[in-house]
Amino acid sequence: MATIQELGEFGLIKHLTESIELKNESSLKGVGDDCAVLAYPQDREVLVTTDLLLEGVHFDLTYVPLKHLGYKSAMVNLSDVYAMGGMPRQITVSLGLSKRFTLEDMEQFYDGLRLACDAHGVDIVGGDTTSSMTGLTISITCIGDVEKGKAIYRNGAKPTDIICVSGNLGAAYMGLQLLEREKIVYYQQLKENKGNATLEMAEPDFAGREYLLQRQLRPEARRDVILRLRELGIQPTSMMDISDGLSSELLHICTDSHTGCRVYEEHIPLDYETAAQAEEFNMNVTTCALNGGEDYELLFTVPMSDKDKIEKIEDVTMIGFVTNEDEGKVLVTRDGNEFQLKAQGWNPLSEEKDKE
Amino acid sequence: MATIQELGEFGLIKHLTESIELKNESSLKGVGDDCAVLAYPQDREVLVTTDLLLEGVHFDLTYVPLKHLGYKSAMVNLSDVYAMGGMPRQITVSLGLSKRFTLEDMEQFYDGLRLACDAHGVDIVGGDTTSSMTGLTISITCIGDVEKGKAIYRNGAKPTDIICVSGNLGAAYMGLQLLEREKIVYYQQLKENKGNATLEMAEPDFAGREYLLQRQLRPEARRDVILRLRELGIQPTSMMDISDGLSSELLHICTDSHTGCRVYEEHIPLDYETAAQAEEFNMNVTTCALNGGEDYELLFTVPMSDKDKIEKIEDVTMIGFVTNEDEGKVLVTRDGNEFQLKAQGWNPLSEEKDKE
Repeated sequence: MATIQELGEFGLIKHLTESIELKNESSLKGVGDDCAVLAYPQDREVLVTTDLLLEGVHFDLTYVPLKHLGYKSAMVNLSDVYAMGGMPRQITVSLGLSKRFTLEDMEQFYDGLRLACDAHGVDIVGGDTTSSMTGLTISITCIGDVEKGKAIYRNGAKPTDIICVSGNLGAAYMGLQLLEREKIVYYQQLKENKGNATLEMAEPDFAGREYLLQRQLRPEARRDVILRLRELGIQPTSMMDISDGLSSELLHICTDSHTGCRVYEEHIPLDYETAAQAEEFNMNVTTCALNGGEDYELLFTVPMSDKDKIEKIEDVTMIGFVTNEDEGKVLVTRDGNEFQLKAQGWNPLSEEKDKE
Repeated sequence: MATIQELGEFGLIKHLTESIELKNESSLKGVGDDCAVLAYPQDREVLVTTDLLLEGVHFDLTYVPLKHLGYKSAMVNLSDVYAMGGMPRQITVSLGLSKRFTLEDMEQFYDGLRLACDAHGVDIVGGDTTSSMTGLTISITCIGDVEKGKAIYRNGAKPTDIICVSGNLGAAYMGLQLLEREKIVYYQQLKENKGNATLEMAEPDFAGREYLLQRQLRPEARRDVILRLRELGIQPTSMMDISDGLSSELLHICTDSHTGCRVYEEHIPLDYETAAQAEEFNMNVTTCALNGGEDYELLFTVPMSDKDKIEKIEDVTMIGFVTNEDEGKVLVTRDGNEFQLKAQGWNPLSEEKDKE
């Protein structure tokens, strides 16, 4: 197989993208010119979102396979388009590659990327590839569309609206803790073996925890929920995807909508595995659900009058209500105590993460 | 002034973008939600381009001021939209920042970015900001539009078409050589002074070379040329911007259009300073013009029948003709010799640049 250096930038892009067939009517021209060319009908608004993912900050290639990373990199962007009530249509993919990556690595990454795009009807229409001095840099931009006037913003929540979340929360965070623990075990054994990996070293034990790993490594953007809301004629008053943790996202909606909220701990949806793992790690599972990120579930508010319709949607839970701003942002615990919600979501600019 | 760490991701983005006013009718919602929301009229096609710029690979902060870097980062993307015959309307800006960058640094970068955007009527509508383990990472996506059916691709050149370029070539490359030379001088002096910068050290001498530095540090995308072509009713048959060097771009157009070309050395537009500097460096100025990148001029082809109109455009030069594919891609030198053009443009994935 040729090396990336032999192929060069244009050769690599060609190799990775030449078999792509554009699926969307709105994709006129994909990879291969100065720009991609798109055409959206008059009655649609165009949605644009972008994410920058850096090795060592957002992902750890010691335990994340490149195919999963490709899948997840696409998915986190698609999720932002769904979070506006829209449908993702195109992505551009920019990669910075250090020398240790092989052509096969990039094929793996693209396999994951394409798997995600195919499942969601999205075209890869462009990007940029370059060398990097330090590991892998991924920048993805996703373009989508939504019916004119139907984009769901963060600022439309009204007092008495019901607060809903899809799926369950905290599982992706627990998956991450599990992977981090096994990484430490691995390096300890490696140290004991004076740096040589041997067959005697214990294999990581993930039995019974597959769901948590899947939630961390292979999250799924909630297209299904958007389609179901549309089928039922529900137009949420506000919506976000939960990437930084429920607390953080709730505070965004409340701040932008100038409201308070009242959320009930007992209604926050949890998976059994998340609870079991939290217990094993001696962690508070509600804290994990509130502050653990990367679930990519949808958080949204609907008018009280939509309550019956919401109950028809499997996998959507009502967790509380929007209140007046002066009532604060309140979590009601199982034992009836009330706490002010705080954003302890992951701060990608915090000192702790920033170790240059 | 607050630090970036104190502000956090959302605070930093807010600080840098809160005074932005959207100028384009097509920009419905900018920074501050899961996606930007745009609305393009039915009779326009949407153009999307993206570039990833990495410290140490694409720019060197020892001699590039952050304000210039912001300006140039925007400009290289706007240039790609002009190269389709379109008008840029929106950009998203993602930044990865290592700890050494201060809030003031980011304000400088944004000042440059906004200067470029204001001059070209472009709105900053979104982005992503995160920490980086290693220097500055910049990813910009630009969205623009063009009249339906009027996007200018690389594949429309026809034999007998005239090949045109705007401005002059090789100056940005010469500017880079100049900066690199002064950097070496600076580090030599620093070494002699045992690492201490002193006032006795010679100041870099750029007198009479300001134009070359400007071309390297503050390139200008050729909006004016696109507007002039439109005024004169000229629809080029193919177009690209010259980012990797004239040779490389000519080969792209010929390959995609299935044609050859015949370009005359004597017609390649050069600035006096470029020629003088090449002589001082003992370099062949034509080689610099053919293979030096980053001029961000436009390369385009027009039917022979547009010759009179083209002559009316100041600052556009006819450098040769499109030929049949089997006639090859030929450079005719001043002394009448013929050479096959080769792409020696900058390969961002070459071994040389890839030093991890």
